[in-house]
Amino acid sequence: MRLRKIKDAREKLEEYRDIVLKDSFAQRGNWHKHFRNENPIHFEIGTGKGKFILESALKNPGINYVGLEVSESVTLRAARKIRSENPKNLCLLNADARTLGEIFGKGEVSKIYLNFSDPWPKNRHEKRRLTSEYFLKLYREILSDSGEIELKTDNRGFFEYSLISLNNHHFRFLEVSLDLHRDEERQIITTEYEEKFINLGQNIYYLKVVK
Amino acid sequence: MRLRKIKDAREKLEEYRDIVLKDSFAQRGNWHKHFRNENPIHFEIGTGKGKFILESALKNPGINYVGLEVSESVTLRAARKIRSENPKNLCLLNADARTLGEIFGKGEVSKIYLNFSDPWPKNRHEKRRLTSEYFLKLYREILSDSGEIELKTDNRGFFEYSLISLNNHHFRFLEVSLDLHRDEERQIITTEYEEKFINLGQNIYYLKVVK
Repeated sequence: MRLRKIKDAREKLEEYRDIVLKDSFAQRGNWHKHFRNENPIHFEIGTGKGKFILESALKNPGINYVGLEVSESVTLRAARKIRSENPKNLCLLNADARTLGEIFGKGEVSKIYLNFSDPWPKNRHEKRRLTSEYFLKLYREILSDSGEIELKTDNRGFFEYSLISLNNHHFRFLEVSLDLHRDEERQIITTEYEEKFINLGQNIYYLKVVK
Repeated sequence: MRLRKIKDAREKLEEYRDIVLKDSFAQRGNWHKHFRNENPIHFEIGTGKGKFILESALKNPGINYVGLEVSESVTLRAARKIRSENPKNLCLLNADARTLGEIFGKGEVSKIYLNFSDPWPKNRHEKRRLTSEYFLKLYREILSDSGEIELKTDNRGFFEYSLISLNNHHFRFLEVSLDLHRDEERQIITTEYEEKFINLGQNIYYLKVVK
């Protein structure tokens, strides 16, 4: 999702250091100490403007949420949105997903959310897709024994790719929907992006897997 | 696919014993002897009116095709269609798929086709679905070491179920399409049923897996 860049976003982020941690790598292996409890840690890669992770954190106070966003401007927008509520069980990181082996220790994460990740449709960009082998190996490291990945996307090609990649790397499928919002009776927390697509009548693909 | 029943279909099948083998179980372990060559054997479960398997056999003389159909009337229709061409590399069986361990020996089949199988949407009918655990275990037995399954369906629920079931039973995904006829450049041999759905603009789901 492309958003207009905010001028001096990096400097402005300094005002939000209660939400966006200064050093993304400092908590590695010590996340439970950081949150001061033993609650499970859920991790969203590509937090965007923060709707999904904020609503999740407010709804589930017994879960700790960490959101990762690579863009400074987008992280800033999310931080501004979170500021008014600022739940204790939520923090953001402004970092590149490729560094996530430096962010979490082995088995530290109970669930990973991939919400409307960039599909990188060109073959030569395959490695950048968040379900490529490179990332799946990292996820396997940081996920706990029965750790899960939940993926939502509106992009057919990315979903097809992810089905194959997650299968080939021995993740066990728990749930699949090829039209999530037609199926669901339970309440779903959506992203900003997702809302737009639902309104357009576009179907959303969903996959939940376990390590 | 429901078709009108043909009166005395069983008796009429007797005229087609060159195409529809009298004893479905007699060739078990001896299929290559039956076809008098060592060509790979491809097996379609639920042959319907026979369009797919007849066209496949005509197009690929170096592959042997065995088609299974449970309905006598439908088997008869397929046999009538095949009669005029009657390729040597094709035969039909009129039997229940649950007996397929009696039809093929271990590793005798190179590829299984599941084309527009009955989705059996009710939970209590799960066992009847051709991608339920019961059938996947049979397929694993009769498939050769690098044996494949190709599945096509217009039914979303059945496809979602099959993705989970095949994954959970350790079949490796090779190809997935959630809209086969929009993707394909290569020539696809379609079934009668499929043609109807393509004309209606319904997308066809496709999955290829390997043992």
